[in-house]
Amino acid sequence: MARVLVVFSSVFGANAQLAQLTEAALASVGAQARVRRVREIVMDDVVRPEAAEAEIVSAEDLDWADGIVLTSPSHTGLPSASVKAFIDEHHDSAVHGTFVNKTFAAMATSGFAHAGQERVVDSLNAVGAAWGCVLVPPSTADPTINKLDGNPFGLSFVLSHGRLPDSEVAAEVLREYFRRFTAVTEALAPLRAATSRGSAPGKVTDGAAGPASGEATGVRRPAHEPTTIADQLN
Amino acid sequence: MARVLVVFSSVFGANAQLAQLTEAALASVGAQARVRRVREIVMDDVVRPEAAEAEIVSAEDLDWADGIVLTSPSHTGLPSASVKAFIDEHHDSAVHGTFVNKTFAAMATSGFAHAGQERVVDSLNAVGAAWGCVLVPPSTADPTINKLDGNPFGLSFVLSHGRLPDSEVAAEVLREYFRRFTAVTEALAPLRAATSRGSAPGKVTDGAAGPASGEATGVRRPAHEPTTIADQLN
Amino acid sequence: MARVLVVFSSVFGANAQLAQLTEAALASVGAQARVRRVREIVMDDVVRPEAAEAEIVSAEDLDWADGIVLTSPSHTGLPSASVKAFIDEHHDSAVHGTFVNKTFAAMATSGFAHAGQERVVDSLNAVGAAWGCVLVPPSTADPTINKLDGNPFGLSFVLSHGRLPDSEVAAEVLREYFRRFTAVTEALAPLRAATSRGSAPGKVTDGAAGPASGEATGVRRPAHEPTTIADQLN
Amino acid sequence: MARVLVVFSSVFGANAQLAQLTEAALASVGAQARVRRVREIVMDDVVRPEAAEAEIVSAEDLDWADGIVLTSPSHTGLPSASVKAFIDEHHDSAVHGTFVNKTFAAMATSGFAHAGQERVVDSLNAVGAAWGCVLVPPSTADPTINKLDGNPFGLSFVLSHGRLPDSEVAAEVLREYFRRFTAVTEALAPLRAATSRGSAPGKVTDGAAGPASGEATGVRRPAHEPTTIADQLN
Repeated sequence: MARVLVVFSSVFGANAQLAQLTEAALASVGAQARVRRVREIVMDDVVRPEAAEAEIVSAEDLDWADGIVLTSPSHTGLPSASVKAFIDEHHDSAVHGTFVNKTFAAMATSGFAHAGQERVVDSLNAVGAAWGCVLVPPSTADPTINKLDGNPFGLSFVLSHGRLPDSEVAAEVLREYFRRFTAVTEALAPLRAATSRGSAPGKVTDGAAGPASGEATGVRRPAHEPTTIADQLN
Repeated sequence: MARVLVVFSSVFGANAQLAQLTEAALASVGAQARVRRVREIVMDDVVRPEAAEAEIVSAEDLDWADGIVLTSPSHTGLPSASVKAFIDEHHDSAVHGTFVNKTFAAMATSGFAHAGQERVVDSLNAVGAAWGCVLVPPSTADPTINKLDGNPFGLSFVLSHGRLPDSEVAAEVLREYFRRFTAVTEALAPLRAATSRGSAPGKVTDGAAGPASGEATGVRRPAHEPTTIADQLN
Repeated sequence: MARVLVVFSSVFGANAQLAQLTEAALASVGAQARVRRVREIVMDDVVRPEAAEAEIVSAEDLDWADGIVLTSPSHTGLPSASVKAFIDEHHDSAVHGTFVNKTFAAMATSGFAHAGQERVVDSLNAVGAAWGCVLVPPSTADPTINKLDGNPFGLSFVLSHGRLPDSEVAAEVLREYFRRFTAVTEALAPLRAATSRGSAPGKVTDGAAGPASGEATGVRRPAHEPTTIADQLN
Repeated sequence: MARVLVVFSSVFGANAQLAQLTEAALASVGAQARVRRVREIVMDDVVRPEAAEAEIVSAEDLDWADGIVLTSPSHTGLPSASVKAFIDEHHDSAVHGTFVNKTFAAMATSGFAHAGQERVVDSLNAVGAAWGCVLVPPSTADPTINKLDGNPFGLSFVLSHGRLPDSEVAAEVLREYFRRFTAVTEALAPLRAATSRGSAPGKVTDGAAGPASGEATGVRRPAHEPTTIADQLN
């Protein structure tokens, strides 16, 4: 049974609503879902109650997952700062290979049709790529998804008054998409098991910097230090 | 045995060289490779002999493949016009689901370090996404790939005098990457088989437009007509 | 009086319609417009008569222009191959600085809301950037443009049955946007004049490769050869 | 005299170094510069002293500026969370037109050549676009910039041990680029003056939501509420 983690950022509630619909869609196709939110760092004093119900995502949640769904509002055409802080905080896990061969899906919402939905899923997909995930974008080959104008690069939803305007249609497209996502996630299970053991084809070895790295930089949090890792923090 | 199609565009020979190294890397990790080139449509009168040796890619090659590797030079920060013509010509196959659940990898070359390598693999990955492929980007989690400054979103190579400056290093990073790519491709084989039968989880139904489409538009090539497909030609 | 060149790619006519509306909008805000089309290289046998009326864009048109508007359908989330061929064919002019300090605007159409409109204007804006143009994106600060869900990164239009569904609304947003575009273009006129003379602040010197370049590569079209230019063809 | 604001994010000091070199380059071409940093929100406990010397950027700084330079490290191929928080916090100013017709430049650093430098400047340029700025990317037409492999979409710098490896070369490319940036900024001065008065060609009217907006949502910070603005927070 595929374990899928749904991580969302929400201040006014739309992405919390989308995450709940995603949880239901995952259940309907036989996956096990966890819904978690990121810590909001901008406008954190006005987060709506319905957006704050889920638990904050933890490293254990990320370890647990076979597949990761990351959904963000479009803020100035990019993922929210809160989503980005979540990504930055788990950079170490990424370079250590924690996410390798997990499946990944990006989703986005915005208040207007062309306000960054494609840009946001592109940015999130780049994160999945850097993490070593296997990306399963929706495609243009599925007429059910197309009916909803569903972005082929990552499902995206135009809001009306801050909410998904037709939750029935959204639910339908989510079920359709996550059936395939779950099937891909399950097919990759043996590979993930082998990767974790560190002994099979597809293995990605530990990217941790050696001890010299800490000496060179001398700060307290060695895992965040410049390392021999391509995408280091700088 | 995973069947991997390597499609390249090359005028001056660098991508042909890269495709050959990729073929060798695939063989070394137990995959079966076909190397094909796109028809060059700009500067076709100056294509170097070594760039013209491979056969032109066909629809049969695309059907045959379990995984697709698409490599392009960066021309003005985008894939070459010749690569784009190849993509446009196979739009119908894409919306009919031909490429669903095949794996996909993007590669790029350029003469300078920051001349569009990231943009090119991003554009190619978007094509793989629209086609319904499963994307397997290199990640930042692999120290061997990082050694080559290997773009985590898709392998990319800076040329020197129009050639890969160190083919040994390139060969090493290609072997490392395609080991994982091949493993993912093999893990998805049962799913692709089920998809082709049209009866299993992960199935994507035929996106073809009905007969009304041809009537509405009245042109000769119905498959290129505006349809109910999200990414129609317009 | 600002001279603005509108370059479009169109098979089925939508972008030809958009180019005509743009010409009218430019006239209404006091700019002088030329509307030109690119040579279609895919599906060139089915180009509609209304899409083929304009002249093919020439190097002289590009020289003439103070501002350049480039509009493309979304094909698989990218500009059409025909637009890309146009870009590749004028690469030499770009690296020689022909387009420096001209203004640039990107536009896109697609049959569905999230079928690549943001990606297409992003790709076209990258071309304008590589060309040395000054980009004047629409922004989210203009309520008239927002009314049309008008993409803040470049105006984009969702088609209905292959045409702009409400040409009055499109005309309104085009007038609003091109008023600002024209004002910026006019403000930069003294700078462009100085750039052309090669003697003023803002000058960009000739990027042409020296004679050694041709010797090293030995092909017939020296301007297309690998040079010391960052974005060379390879 | 063009007033240029340089905003950077820096934990380990590289972007602070880059901002200082930019300040010197601006001074050498006759511009007036302010260098400001964003508030660091991730790893804020390990910010190096040299990265913390500049003042935190304020709304007044943004108002003051004729041109804005935004520089970020690449973190997982995107601007840092701290840069994104800065962007989100000034969303209201953006939709109210504060930044319209100011010039904009994006810069990036990373520890490896292909670790997101192109992606970061692309994301930052999208922010400048949404803000209504006029973008002045470096281009491929300038051989001095090309010498440094200087990204044509926005200057970017590969670090060595967390620092710019050759500050002389960086200084040269910054002087070359900011000469043109300053000239464009000065040429647009009359247009910005007219825009501020709200009475001239190029004017963008106030995008503020009416009073009904607050009533509909009932939260304390009306300026962050869903409005009729395309790129609203959601």
